[in-house]
Amino acid sequence: MKKINTSPISGAQEFLPETQAIFNQLKSQIALVYRAHGFQEIETPVIERTEILLAKAGGDTEKQIYKVIKTAESSDDADQALRFDHTVPLARYVVEHENDLPFPFKVSQIGRNFRGERAQKGRFREFYQCDVDIVGRNNLSLDYDAEVIATVYEALSIFVNAGMVIRVSNRKILSGLLEALELSEKAEAIFGIIDHAEKVPVSVTEESLKNLGLSPEQQQILLNFMSIYGRYDEISEKLQSFGITNELYQQGVDELAKVLQVLGEHGIKNAIADMLIVRGLDYYTGTVFETILPDYKEIGSVCSGGRYDNLASNYSNQSFPGVGGSIGLSRLFYILQEKNLIRPEILQTDKPVDLAVIPISENERQLALETAQKFRAEGKTVDVILTDKKLGDKLNYAAKFAKNSIVLGEEEAKTGNYEIKELS
Amino acid sequence: MKKINTSPISGAQEFLPETQAIFNQLKSQIALVYRAHGFQEIETPVIERTEILLAKAGGDTEKQIYKVIKTAESSDDADQALRFDHTVPLARYVVEHENDLPFPFKVSQIGRNFRGERAQKGRFREFYQCDVDIVGRNNLSLDYDAEVIATVYEALSIFVNAGMVIRVSNRKILSGLLEALELSEKAEAIFGIIDHAEKVPVSVTEESLKNLGLSPEQQQILLNFMSIYGRYDEISEKLQSFGITNELYQQGVDELAKVLQVLGEHGIKNAIADMLIVRGLDYYTGTVFETILPDYKEIGSVCSGGRYDNLASNYSNQSFPGVGGSIGLSRLFYILQEKNLIRPEILQTDKPVDLAVIPISENERQLALETAQKFRAEGKTVDVILTDKKLGDKLNYAAKFAKNSIVLGEEEAKTGNYEIKELS
Repeated sequence: MKKINTSPISGAQEFLPETQAIFNQLKSQIALVYRAHGFQEIETPVIERTEILLAKAGGDTEKQIYKVIKTAESSDDADQALRFDHTVPLARYVVEHENDLPFPFKVSQIGRNFRGERAQKGRFREFYQCDVDIVGRNNLSLDYDAEVIATVYEALSIFVNAGMVIRVSNRKILSGLLEALELSEKAEAIFGIIDHAEKVPVSVTEESLKNLGLSPEQQQILLNFMSIYGRYDEISEKLQSFGITNELYQQGVDELAKVLQVLGEHGIKNAIADMLIVRGLDYYTGTVFETILPDYKEIGSVCSGGRYDNLASNYSNQSFPGVGGSIGLSRLFYILQEKNLIRPEILQTDKPVDLAVIPISENERQLALETAQKFRAEGKTVDVILTDKKLGDKLNYAAKFAKNSIVLGEEEAKTGNYEIKELS
Repeated sequence: MKKINTSPISGAQEFLPETQAIFNQLKSQIALVYRAHGFQEIETPVIERTEILLAKAGGDTEKQIYKVIKTAESSDDADQALRFDHTVPLARYVVEHENDLPFPFKVSQIGRNFRGERAQKGRFREFYQCDVDIVGRNNLSLDYDAEVIATVYEALSIFVNAGMVIRVSNRKILSGLLEALELSEKAEAIFGIIDHAEKVPVSVTEESLKNLGLSPEQQQILLNFMSIYGRYDEISEKLQSFGITNELYQQGVDELAKVLQVLGEHGIKNAIADMLIVRGLDYYTGTVFETILPDYKEIGSVCSGGRYDNLASNYSNQSFPGVGGSIGLSRLFYILQEKNLIRPEILQTDKPVDLAVIPISENERQLALETAQKFRAEGKTVDVILTDKKLGDKLNYAAKFAKNSIVLGEEEAKTGNYEIKELS
């Protein structure tokens, strides 16, 4: 009988070993794709100084942050907190190690992040993110925006058993439009409204724009703008039809065209332009993308990211433009399990132990240990069943996790011959 | 120029990508050995309720704990903190998931733990531990104590380029001795003194025992006891020479003999009994062990653990005896690097990228992307150099991390032929 509550903390994902094995396989498949694309792995500490984490963030992030406090008094500790993503610590890392890194720096980070969100189904406070980023010094080719998107898309394709569509936009387009409409002062609010537009009825979006003090004409222009999506050749005319001539708008359109073109060169056929994509995080400055499963729209984005040209500007006078993409693996895994959308070849995990070697008595223990090492040397996973149970109980126990068994008794010890039998 | 301090927090280990690659290799080699021995992987959350973490610990641990506090107010959050080891969360995990686990449960955990220790050379506040544990229900064969020791020893042997000795004891022996000397009330203090004995001159140990109020005779008995070490056949007579007949003492001696015998059956020749080994953590109840490099005694133990029969007793009325071993990888890696004791075959890491594909202009970009995918499909790690630089600069950049290069220009695009050249 339990004496106290032994459940994990609210908002944590804790698996039984069989599920953990599948989760770990997804994680290592993603790592393999990232490595195959030439991304190098780093790990930053989970704990960061709060001034690093909040240099740019603010807003919701600040509310969700976990502060950490040492019980023991110590004079050398600044205000510290748990990282809420990989991108902000990466900006610090790049500035710190600038002189020892090649630029563009292609880097991957797979690890846990922490947000004190309201605990709810499929939302975790402690969650894995699998990120790739490419960081330049002073400049970074737009080709890398497509490289990031192609890499995360390939990683997802390994295990997601459903069609996917990558929705791409560029924040400069909307910024340019708002500049032309003389709405730049309200940009943050309008980005927020568009970011939420898919989660609410159109009437709510209209009402929100109206409440911001936009004229009916401005509202209509924005609603028209938000409805633009499709292949680039399908939408370029629509984007020009607004008659916006400022540099920001044109630059955004050109960058979007270029990223979509290079994605095509990557062989990716299901990337579309979509003006509804703006991303909530305000550190994005150009390309933004989200990935959806069109047959499961309710899931929302399963992988997203974008270009951030100024993230390190809070830490350094040097310019480090970057672009990144992130697979939120904890949430994604939860959803894919629930919807039964993990590729069957990944779910077909055998029992974890290839072979259980079972000595009948202590007399055969040494032989069992030696036999196990022999099979391990051949790359097999082997357990020696050392419990003081009856043979039948040992076999029942081994059958829970092992594929095959070898039973060693007096006879086998004498002759050196044994049989490998399948456990069922 | 940096605007603010971008160093990682004090007491964190943060690597450049090349060093991270070596660290990751050690981590995955350890994981491979653990898996080969039939241990199943789990991960518990980094954040635990404080009542779970401190149910048994107390003392130093309580002082070193990191509490976490959400900035946003929330009613569903108990007092929470970061885990300081894997063993305490494992006890909670086993009680929580009891009905879904096979017993004995062979489990491995590789991850970061957190202690707010005074920051010092080679001591980290955020550090990796690589643990194996075997947890029984109601009972657990002593053979598993040896299995844990053999497994961690094999894992260390993969990368530690120095002789190792495993020092084994059993806490019941000293407990029995103290019972016979009527010193059981001072057991905690005496265990502490013996645990520290190697770090101080003998005179300090003598003084400490004297200050505890021990008679000169009692002091002498303990000093004699502490000096016992060697193969079991060399020390068994000495252990009997104290004339202690209580059950606890005899049980400890018998258990120690058994564990050393089974280690021999594992083919391990350098395990010795050593009465100086008592382990600081008071949750150990029987077998305790430490691993040293005799040629580098100043390093201290590189891997340790022991038997804990009552750890889950704070959470459940059911008995879950366990035995575990832990490689403190962050500290060990730091020391092995400093002393140059990592096996050369592990340090001979090639450049991480097999091939850099370099398009001379945008016209060859698509061919470059396709060529890269072709080599990735063959298992190669491939980077496409997409920067807007001159060819010479691209080659210099690629040479930093890639072994070979393919340059694609007009000619190669026309003929489809290209050369793979080594980068130096």
